Amino acid sequence: MQAVAIVTILALAQFILFSIQVGSMRGKHGVKAPAVTGHPEFERMFRVQQNTMEQLVAFVPALWIFAYLVNPFWGAAMGLVFIVGRFLYRASYVKDPDSRGIGFTLTFLPTAVMLVWALVDALLSFV
Amino acid sequence: MQAVAIVTILALAQFILFSIQVGSMRGKHGVKAPAVTGHPEFERMFRVQQNTMEQLVAFVPALWIFAYLVNPFWGAAMGLVFIVGRFLYRASYVKDPDSRGIGFTLTFLPTAVMLVWALVDALLSFV
Amino acid sequence: MQAVAIVTILALAQFILFSIQVGSMRGKHGVKAPAVTGHPEFERMFRVQQNTMEQLVAFVPALWIFAYLVNPFWGAAMGLVFIVGRFLYRASYVKDPDSRGIGFTLTFLPTAVMLVWALVDALLSFV
Repeated sequence: MQAVAIVTILALAQFILFSIQVGSMRGKHGVKAPAVTGHPEFERMFRVQQNTMEQLVAFVPALWIFAYLVNPFWGAAMGLVFIVGRFLYRASYVKDPDSRGIGFTLTFLPTAVMLVWALVDALLSFV
Repeated sequence: MQAVAIVTILALAQFILFSIQVGSMRGKHGVKAPAVTGHPEFERMFRVQQNTMEQLVAFVPALWIFAYLVNPFWGAAMGLVFIVGRFLYRASYVKDPDSRGIGFTLTFLPTAVMLVWALVDALLSFV
Repeated sequence: MQAVAIVTILALAQFILFSIQVGSMRGKHGVKAPAVTGHPEFERMFRVQQNTMEQLVAFVPALWIFAYLVNPFWGAAMGLVFIVGRFLYRASYVKDPDSRGIGFTLTFLPTAVMLVWALVDALLSFV
């Protein structure tokens, strides 16, 4: 489970990094709290961070349930895909929101695969 | 704990479904990222998804703490109430945001009951 | 782990309290759902609740990973700092968003310390 813990910590650290970048965009473009609109570059970074939070809400429980029921090694591996996918998502979204597809898919897919796989595993345990 | 895992997976799958529906409302009404306003139907579905995320942030830890400290079976049962309540919440919110009360209560109550019950149980363990 | 469970429950209860206060600000200032802007006092309370959710998404997994890998007692203690910090954050943000620094730091620091400490601990276990 150590590998799963490390991957979780790295994914949370990435989210904290994105949050810090939202803060520095606030400073750069003079978007004062509580406003969350006002400059396109700020708004894009803010949406990247918000979408990353949405993904984490499903990803973290999915990863741990999968690690316990199925396999911690494959969980950690899919977690690494998630993290790489998020960096791609940020890079493409900030350049052009319409190009966010690949980065989004690379973070969505690991979560979806782990949820379905763990669900099948849990249901089979009742058979 | 298998039943608790299944209910958690179903609640996360419901959240992912709502997220996909936000995406299709973007397409339907031409609300281009990073905008999160622009058409009432999109805004309602977006708020349903955002509120579901807020609820999940408290519900998932509440469910697992309750399952460990008190009872996994009752945890899973309250999780099913949560999921049904969320579907009611979405249906009523999309029709008329002012009618969201019952669906909201059915998702809020299971979380509140599990938190209070688990807190009492944990505090009693120190007596 | 009972102390860690209690601190988690209190942090989630605090978040639920903030959510209820967002709801009462809706009523007070006539900000009807799905709108999330319209009155400064509502917008400040809404941002306090949203930022608390962002913090919880990292804090709760950080706390439990730290408690398992390092030490549940110190985890619970840092959790109490988090909760006190969040009340300071709310109090200062509602008065003047620019003064939110200290409250923010007191909630950010426990999470950061636990993540780094647990990461070092997990990495050392492979040596």
